[in-house]
Amino acid sequence: MDIIRNTLSRIKPLNPELLQQTQARLDNKTKPPGSLGRLEEFACRVVAISGNPNPDISKKVVFTFAGDHGVTEEGVSLYPSEVTPQMVLNFLSGGAGINVLARHVGAEVRVVDVGVDYDFAGITGLIHKKVARGTKNFAKGPAMTGEEAIAALTVGIELADQCRAEGVGLVGTGEMGIGNTTPSSAIIAAISGKTVAEVTHRGTGIGDAALANKIRVIEQGLALNKPDPNDPLDVLAKVGGLEIAAIAGLVLGCAANSIPVVIDGFISTAGALIASELHPNVRDYIFAAHQSVEVGHSFMLERIGAEPILDLRLRLGEGTGAALAMMLIEAAVKVLKEMATFEQAGVSH
Amino acid sequence: MDIIRNTLSRIKPLNPELLQQTQARLDNKTKPPGSLGRLEEFACRVVAISGNPNPDISKKVVFTFAGDHGVTEEGVSLYPSEVTPQMVLNFLSGGAGINVLARHVGAEVRVVDVGVDYDFAGITGLIHKKVARGTKNFAKGPAMTGEEAIAALTVGIELADQCRAEGVGLVGTGEMGIGNTTPSSAIIAAISGKTVAEVTHRGTGIGDAALANKIRVIEQGLALNKPDPNDPLDVLAKVGGLEIAAIAGLVLGCAANSIPVVIDGFISTAGALIASELHPNVRDYIFAAHQSVEVGHSFMLERIGAEPILDLRLRLGEGTGAALAMMLIEAAVKVLKEMATFEQAGVSH
Repeated sequence: MDIIRNTLSRIKPLNPELLQQTQARLDNKTKPPGSLGRLEEFACRVVAISGNPNPDISKKVVFTFAGDHGVTEEGVSLYPSEVTPQMVLNFLSGGAGINVLARHVGAEVRVVDVGVDYDFAGITGLIHKKVARGTKNFAKGPAMTGEEAIAALTVGIELADQCRAEGVGLVGTGEMGIGNTTPSSAIIAAISGKTVAEVTHRGTGIGDAALANKIRVIEQGLALNKPDPNDPLDVLAKVGGLEIAAIAGLVLGCAANSIPVVIDGFISTAGALIASELHPNVRDYIFAAHQSVEVGHSFMLERIGAEPILDLRLRLGEGTGAALAMMLIEAAVKVLKEMATFEQAGVSH
Repeated sequence: MDIIRNTLSRIKPLNPELLQQTQARLDNKTKPPGSLGRLEEFACRVVAISGNPNPDISKKVVFTFAGDHGVTEEGVSLYPSEVTPQMVLNFLSGGAGINVLARHVGAEVRVVDVGVDYDFAGITGLIHKKVARGTKNFAKGPAMTGEEAIAALTVGIELADQCRAEGVGLVGTGEMGIGNTTPSSAIIAAISGKTVAEVTHRGTGIGDAALANKIRVIEQGLALNKPDPNDPLDVLAKVGGLEIAAIAGLVLGCAANSIPVVIDGFISTAGALIASELHPNVRDYIFAAHQSVEVGHSFMLERIGAEPILDLRLRLGEGTGAALAMMLIEAAVKVLKEMATFEQAGVSH
């Protein structure tokens, strides 16, 4: 717990003066005030997060955390768990959606095994941080022990610390884990008090009968494990996932290290929700990449206080939405740094 | 009129088989079917527009057309008309919003003087296509003669033809013209039959009294000039603008040359509306970059049948929204061309 307590103690509120000074600089650029809309908001916030009036976010990294889920034995997903390691290998050979989109925006993809039920020994290019070979089936008992949840959180925190040391200016979250919309919905239901049916959807595309089963499984898991809604780590351990814990840790670590963090879709937002329940100021460091089609996502964004940047009906995960949104945040920073002022350009105003 | 008739005759409906074949290819990529949402729609449509199963849209150009408006003498804008040539010079020296965003996405900006009330003789880097030194005040008579409207349309068509010859794969529209939300609202009101108040907003940021005056001026112009809603060229000439006409021509030319065209915000969409009223199949070639904050924009997008890609509360124009959206369309094409299939990656499905 020491690393978590220490990380939480490093998270500070943003400096409102930096936000105001940056808006004043933007208002002196050759455009009507406010006319670049949310790009201006992004630029102000990156300055306030980084504490640097001219932030360098050219070094961008998307972390794709992989983990398996014992609850898949309840038939909650269309795809078998063997797809998780298969996709990890696809990430490493550069053929997955996140590889294509990250290359397109100039971001590096770092693939982290935090809990895949497969032996990757000797595989290069992978960040080996396996805490367990998947979670346990939370319909029959806790998904993780408290120690496992903390170990997976710590993986995320340490990767964020490393980003700070390397000068990474913008971090994105992503994940791969067959079955992982199920623990995500369980986390939201546990924290919000909403019914499971209100926050559970079709994941990769299950039909009506499978959706009814998924809801029943989550209800059973919550009734059995009784996660404490006021203790985010308890919720995480009992009905969460190892990759979700690592994302929560990465988000905490980015906030502690003054790095803006772009959270991808439904599952990443569940991780960010755990982080923001642990420390309210975490919210200021978060950019929500996109509106997921998963119901329950809007609830989480509202609770985190984040307005999604894109709405392209994405539901792939991996960090794909985050990669695209990072390009827009980088655009905003370039507006601040590169646009001419009225005086420089000799434009009347 | 011959070049316009000839251009219209070259605009063909999209091939539905190409749309289907491309979706089938996307469904075999390592992702759940449809999970890349609108990116999949973009990829299908770029293939069908270009007629090329593996389209190359790496060469991207944003055209920023500049023109002045006689109607500014009625006090419809916050800024004086001298800002139009000042901003043209800012575009040429690379300090404006469109320069920053186009550089960011790897697009070239081509600045076209189609109607600025300023003598740019000898200025290099500018595409000199001046039809007139601004329009006339449409509150007192027609904005343009029919010949001027056709000449400005022809500028756009010829630039699109040149793109085809150069292998440009994706075109964006943009504009600069103090006062040009006024003719844009006039065009929508004339074509839609909606009241002027319903489709008129604050442009660069005018207050309540100025907005009431702007509405009155447009009402006066429509009552005086009586544009025929069934004759888009009549509407364009009587209450439009030279840069709006050039955008309409560029959109027609892109459709005729099988080039996807990304239309920017409110003013660009008014140009695209004229084009799509001239030939219904033009709609298939259009991508709407973003949802403008201007009221009246939604009406136009609905009539064109285009769903905006971004909603970042942009209201700068110049092509800034188009540049950002082009990056997302290019991402979609890379998904199609670069992602591994299930078989290539050895992933179960």
